[in-house]
Amino acid sequence: MKRTNLRALFDPESIAIIGASPDDQKIGGRPLSYLQKYRYEGKIYPINPKYKEINDLKCFPDIKSVPEEIDLAIIAVPKSIVLETFKKCADRKVRSVVIFSAGFAEVDEEGKRLQEEISLIAEQNNVSVLGPNCLGMFNVKKSVYGTFSTIIEDEKPLLSNIGFVSQSGAFGSHVFTLARQHKIGFSYFVATGNECDVDVADCIQFLAEDPGTDVIACYIEGTKDGDKLIEALKLARKNKKPVIALKVGKTDVGMKAALSHTGSLVGSDDVFDTVFKQNGVYRAETIEEFLDVTYAASKLPFPKGNRTAVFTVSGGVGIMLADQLSANGLTLPETPEPVKEKLRDILPIAAVQNPIDTTAQISYMPTLLEDFMESVLSSGEYDSAVVFLGFAGLKLDSLNDRIETLVKMKDRFKDIPQIAVTINSETSRQIFSDAGLYVSDDPSRAVTVSKALLYFAGQQEEENEEVYLPNKDIFGLSTVLTEYGSKKILKQYGIPITEEKLARTAEEAVQYANEIGYPIVLKGMSPQILHKTEKGLVILNVKDNEEVREKFGILKTIIQQTNGAEFEGVLIQEMLKNDSVEMVVGSKKDPIFGQIVLVGLGGIYIEVLKDVSMRKAPVSVREAEKMIHELRASPILHSYRGKQPYDVEELSKLISQFSHFIVSQEEKLLEVDLNPVMVFTKGQGIKVADGLMTLEKQVIHS
Amino acid sequence: MKRTNLRALFDPESIAIIGASPDDQKIGGRPLSYLQKYRYEGKIYPINPKYKEINDLKCFPDIKSVPEEIDLAIIAVPKSIVLETFKKCADRKVRSVVIFSAGFAEVDEEGKRLQEEISLIAEQNNVSVLGPNCLGMFNVKKSVYGTFSTIIEDEKPLLSNIGFVSQSGAFGSHVFTLARQHKIGFSYFVATGNECDVDVADCIQFLAEDPGTDVIACYIEGTKDGDKLIEALKLARKNKKPVIALKVGKTDVGMKAALSHTGSLVGSDDVFDTVFKQNGVYRAETIEEFLDVTYAASKLPFPKGNRTAVFTVSGGVGIMLADQLSANGLTLPETPEPVKEKLRDILPIAAVQNPIDTTAQISYMPTLLEDFMESVLSSGEYDSAVVFLGFAGLKLDSLNDRIETLVKMKDRFKDIPQIAVTINSETSRQIFSDAGLYVSDDPSRAVTVSKALLYFAGQQEEENEEVYLPNKDIFGLSTVLTEYGSKKILKQYGIPITEEKLARTAEEAVQYANEIGYPIVLKGMSPQILHKTEKGLVILNVKDNEEVREKFGILKTIIQQTNGAEFEGVLIQEMLKNDSVEMVVGSKKDPIFGQIVLVGLGGIYIEVLKDVSMRKAPVSVREAEKMIHELRASPILHSYRGKQPYDVEELSKLISQFSHFIVSQEEKLLEVDLNPVMVFTKGQGIKVADGLMTLEKQVIHS
Repeated sequence: MKRTNLRALFDPESIAIIGASPDDQKIGGRPLSYLQKYRYEGKIYPINPKYKEINDLKCFPDIKSVPEEIDLAIIAVPKSIVLETFKKCADRKVRSVVIFSAGFAEVDEEGKRLQEEISLIAEQNNVSVLGPNCLGMFNVKKSVYGTFSTIIEDEKPLLSNIGFVSQSGAFGSHVFTLARQHKIGFSYFVATGNECDVDVADCIQFLAEDPGTDVIACYIEGTKDGDKLIEALKLARKNKKPVIALKVGKTDVGMKAALSHTGSLVGSDDVFDTVFKQNGVYRAETIEEFLDVTYAASKLPFPKGNRTAVFTVSGGVGIMLADQLSANGLTLPETPEPVKEKLRDILPIAAVQNPIDTTAQISYMPTLLEDFMESVLSSGEYDSAVVFLGFAGLKLDSLNDRIETLVKMKDRFKDIPQIAVTINSETSRQIFSDAGLYVSDDPSRAVTVSKALLYFAGQQEEENEEVYLPNKDIFGLSTVLTEYGSKKILKQYGIPITEEKLARTAEEAVQYANEIGYPIVLKGMSPQILHKTEKGLVILNVKDNEEVREKFGILKTIIQQTNGAEFEGVLIQEMLKNDSVEMVVGSKKDPIFGQIVLVGLGGIYIEVLKDVSMRKAPVSVREAEKMIHELRASPILHSYRGKQPYDVEELSKLISQFSHFIVSQEEKLLEVDLNPVMVFTKGQGIKVADGLMTLEKQVIHS
Repeated sequence: MKRTNLRALFDPESIAIIGASPDDQKIGGRPLSYLQKYRYEGKIYPINPKYKEINDLKCFPDIKSVPEEIDLAIIAVPKSIVLETFKKCADRKVRSVVIFSAGFAEVDEEGKRLQEEISLIAEQNNVSVLGPNCLGMFNVKKSVYGTFSTIIEDEKPLLSNIGFVSQSGAFGSHVFTLARQHKIGFSYFVATGNECDVDVADCIQFLAEDPGTDVIACYIEGTKDGDKLIEALKLARKNKKPVIALKVGKTDVGMKAALSHTGSLVGSDDVFDTVFKQNGVYRAETIEEFLDVTYAASKLPFPKGNRTAVFTVSGGVGIMLADQLSANGLTLPETPEPVKEKLRDILPIAAVQNPIDTTAQISYMPTLLEDFMESVLSSGEYDSAVVFLGFAGLKLDSLNDRIETLVKMKDRFKDIPQIAVTINSETSRQIFSDAGLYVSDDPSRAVTVSKALLYFAGQQEEENEEVYLPNKDIFGLSTVLTEYGSKKILKQYGIPITEEKLARTAEEAVQYANEIGYPIVLKGMSPQILHKTEKGLVILNVKDNEEVREKFGILKTIIQQTNGAEFEGVLIQEMLKNDSVEMVVGSKKDPIFGQIVLVGLGGIYIEVLKDVSMRKAPVSVREAEKMIHELRASPILHSYRGKQPYDVEELSKLISQFSHFIVSQEEKLLEVDLNPVMVFTKGQGIKVADGLMTLEKQVIHS
C-alpha cells in the first residue's frame, strides 16, 4: 500500500511546533532554533499557551488557533498529553506529525495501548505519524528540522544525495556524526522510533522517489510488514537507487538483545539476508563499511566489469590489495605489454606489472602518477582503479599534485570508478571533498568499496515470471500430511514423484508390488509418525510376494503398537536404483516475510554443514539455478571427479515450480520437506522420493 | 642458530655514517641529522673524504681512520662502491652494518651475485648486515637512527613497548605514520630490505629478548628459512610476547604479485597460516586490524575468560556488539539479578540486560557510567568490557568525565581489559593516550581487539612430546611406493593397517584369501599406476576361490596391458564391513617449512569442500585432536543424528604417530596420502585401508 502524503512530513511548507520554547536546550526549543538558524523558508507556528511570541514569531495558544494549513506538527509535550494533543492535530487536519515524546510501546502495556490508539487515529484521519519515542527527521536541502537531536547544533548538516533512515536514534546520531567528520552529508535523515505509523519501509519508498536522493542507507532492527519492506526495496531498485542496509540481530545473542531493545518481533536474520540479496540491497556488517559503501555509491560510477588496476606507492600494499581484491571477486589483469613498455620508459625502476608500483619516486616526479594512470586506463583493459598513496594525505605540500592528477583522471575516465587511498587528516578530507573526489582511509576498506560497487553494477530488476496455480483448498482438515498425502498433492502440481501406491491390506500390497515391479520399497504410513526411518517403518529392497506379505504385517504392527498412531496403510514404492544425488527441497513460513524456499544436499550437508541456500518464494528457474550454485557442495552436482553431471536443470525447474506452489498455499503451509529429492544424471530428471508437509493449525468452526 | 651480535646493530654505542652529508635531504645526511636532532648519546663518526667536519663533528676520510671501535656502520654510498665499502668495514671489524643502497638481488642477476658476495663476507667476518635495499632501522629509546626515511623528519618518534619489523620499507613507513596519527609509538622499527643477512626471524628473536619490547608486530612476505622463523616465534611465545603478523600473498594473485615484488620464493600461504596458529601468532588481515590488535596487546591485560560486559549509549550498537562478539567466541552473560536491581535504582529507564544501555542520560549524569561499571564489573561475572561512548570523543566538555571514570575503572579492575569506543579527533586521541587508556574508533574494531586478546590469553607454550623413531633408510631407491609397499612401512611404525598379503600368483591369492576369510578385496599393484580405482584395479566383495582366480587374471591383464606398468602382484585384503567414517590423513613437504601433516574427511569433503586441517609436523595427540575438531564436518565423527560416536581418540593417536614418522623421514618424503583411513565406532579403533607415498627424486651415485 503506497503512501501518498509523506511529502507533507518530509518536505512541509508549514510547520507547527507544539510545546515550542525559546530555550534552545529544551526539546521544544531545539527544532525552532534549528529552523530559524538554518533558515527554513516555510511558515513556522510556535504553539505554547505560555507565550505570545517566541524568537520574533507569533506564538499560538493551541493548534486550533493557527489560521492556515499545517503540513507538519511537531509534538514536543509530556507523554501524558500526547494523545490529546495528537487528537487535536487530527481534528485540525494537520497532514503529518512527529512525536518526540517517549514512554509508549517501548516501556509498558499502558504505553502500548496509547500508541495503538495513536495508530488508529492516524489511519482514520490519514495523518502520517513519525514516532513516538523518536529523534525526528531533517531535510537538509529545505532546512526542515523536525528533530531535537544535538548532532546538528554546532553546524548546519552537509547536503548530499544520500538519504538515511535509522530505526535507532542513537545509532543514527552516531553515523551522522562520523559522516560529518568524513565530510559526508545527507539529503534526509530520519529516525523512525516506535514506528506507530510511518516505518522504515515508508521512508525507503519516499527516498526511492525523491529526486534529491540517489543512494539510500538504512539501519534496521526488524519490521512488522515484510511485504511492504520488499515492495519499497523493489521500488528503489527499479529507480536505480542503491540501498545499503546495516541490520543487527544476526546471532541468537544479538537477536535476544534486539528483542529486549525493540520489544517487538525481529524476524529471522537469515531470511532478512535472503530478502536483501534478492532485492539488490548491499548488507554492511560494520559501521565503517556502512558509511564507506554508502559514500562510494553516492560519488562513484559503477564499474562495467571486475578488471581492476592497482597503482601503489608500496609493493607490499600492492600485494595485499591483489590478495584482497581477488578474494572479493575482482581480477587484476596483467598490464598489456605495450603499456608496460610505456611505463618502463617513464620510470625504469617501477614494477610495471599490475599491481603497479610507482615507488617512492611519485614524490619526486609530479607527473608520474598521471602518466601511469593515463597509460594504463586508456588501454581499455580496466573497469576500475585503486590508487594507494600511502600517507600523502598528511603531506599537504605534495597532496595538491596528487589531487590535480586524480581530478584530471576522474574527468578523463568518467566510467571508471577510481578509489584513492591515503591516511587522512581533517584537512586532507576537506581537500578531497572539495575536489569532488572519493577517498578511502585504508586499502582494505577500498577493497570492500570495490566489491560493493561491483555488486551494485550487477543488480538488475528481477524477471517477472507469472505462473498460474489454482489457490484451492487441497488440504482438508489435517495439520500434518503423511508422505503419501503430501506427494499426492505435489503430483497434482506437476512435481515428479516416485511411482507408488497405498495398500490397505497385504494382498493389495502384493498386487501393487507386482504392478510396479520388484525390487520395491515398503513404508508404513501414519499421520502421527513423522520420522519413519527412526521407527523402522522404511524397508528397502523388498524382493518378492512372500517378503511383501511378511513386511506388511511387521509395518502394520509397529504402527498399531505406537501410542495414538493411526494406520493409514503401507506405501508400495518403486526402488530408485540409478546413479543419483540426494537433495532436500523445502519451505518454511517466516513470520515476517512469508514463504521461503530452500535447497541443500541431503543428510550431513544440510544438517551438519548447514549448507543451504534460500529465497523468498516464488523464484524463477534461473534464480533457482543460482540457489543451487551458491551451495558450497554444488560441485558434487557438476563433474566432480570425472563423473557425469547431474540434472541441475530439472532440479531448478522443480525448485521454481515448488516455490510457486508454496506461495499459492501461502496461508496454509507452515513447512514442507521434500527429502530426499533424487537428482539423476543429466537428462534423466529428478524424483521426489519422500515428502512431509506441516500445515498451519486449522481452526474448525462448527 | 641464534645470533649473538644484534645488540651492536640495534643498540650500538658508536655509529659511523659512510657517505655522511651536511645536507639533511640526502640519504647520507638524514641519519646524521636525526641522530643529532634527537640526541643520540653514543659516538658518531661521519665518514666522507669531501669534508673535514660535518655539523660540528669531525669527519673521517674513510672507515679505517676512525680511531675507536665501531658497533654500527651505515652505508649510504652509490651501489657501485657498496661492496668495496663493506669489505673495508669487515676488515675494520665493524660489528654491524646497515646498507641503504638499492640495485641488488631485487633488480638483476649481477645485483644478486653482488649481494651473495656481501652475505658471504658477512658470515665469514661475523658482521651483521641489515639490507641492502633497505630503509634501515631505529631504536627510539636510545635515539639510534640508522634510517633515511622521512617519516621521522618532523617529529621524534613516540616510544612504546612495541617492536615492529617489516619486510617492506614503504609498508613499514605507512604503518608507522598511521600509528603516529593514533599516538602509538614503538621500541624499535626495522625494515629488513633484501635480507642478505639479518632477516625478519633474527629481528623477532632480538625483540623477543629485548626488555623494552613486550609486543612484536611484523609484516611478512615470505622467508627462506622456515625453521629459523619458527624458532624465533617459539622464543617470543616462551617470553610471553604476543606476535602480530600481517602476511601478504594469500591468494594466487597476491602470491604472483609477491613473487614479482621480492623475486624470491614466498612459500605456501596456508602453511604460513598453520605455522602462525601453531606458534600463537595472531594473523591480522588488514592494516587497521594489524595496528589495533598490536596496540591493544601493548596496553591491555589479557582476559581470564570470554565473558564480556557491554556498556553502550546506543541500544542499536549494543545489539551489533552482541552479534559480533558472540560470532567471535565471546559471550555476553546476563546481568546478575541483584546487579540489575542496582542499575534500575540508578536509572530506571536504562536497559539493564547485557548489553547494558546507559541511554543518552550518560550526558546528564556524570557518575552514571562509573556507577554502572562498578556494579557490573565488581560482580566478578565478567572477564572483559566494551564501553561504547558514541561520539563522546568529539565533545571535549563531557569527555573529561568519561576519561576520569575509565581511568578509575582501569585501576579498580586491573585484570579486566576495558575497551572504550568513540569517534575520535586528534585531540581526543591525545587525551586518551595521556590518560594511559586504550581507545578504539569503531565498535567492530573493538570486537576484533576483544577476539585477539582472548586469542592471546589462550596461548600456552606447546607441549613437548618426544617420540623416538629410527631415522633409517626404509625406502630403497624407489620414488613412488605402491599401496602394498607404503603400508608395509607404516606397519613397521606401528600404524594399524588392513590385514593383507601380496599374491604373485592366482594360487597364492586363493591361499591368502582363505587365510584372511571371505569376503575379501583384490587390488592390482603396480608402482606405475597410482590411481587404482580409475584403472579398475580395485575389486570389492570377492566371495569365493573361483572368483579370486578369475579376478586375479583380470587385474594382472589390466596392468600388463598398461604401457610401462610393472606387475607387482595382487593385494588380498580384508573387507572392512563395520560402521566407519572414511578419513584422509596425509602429508606434504613444504619448501619453506618442511613436513606438514593434514587430516580431512574423505572424498567430497576434502576434495570439493576443501575441509582440511593442517599443522607443521610433529604434533602431539592433543594437538591432533584439535585438528580434527577444526574440521567443519567434524560433527559427523561425534554423535550426529543419534549415531554412535567414532574413535576420534585412536584417530588422534594415528595423526600424531604419523606426524612423527614423516618428520623422521623429513628429507625423503614428498607426499603421503593415507586414504581412506577407516575410523570405526568408539573403542573399535581405526585402520588404514589404502596408502600412497611419493618420495623425493632420488639421485643415485654410481
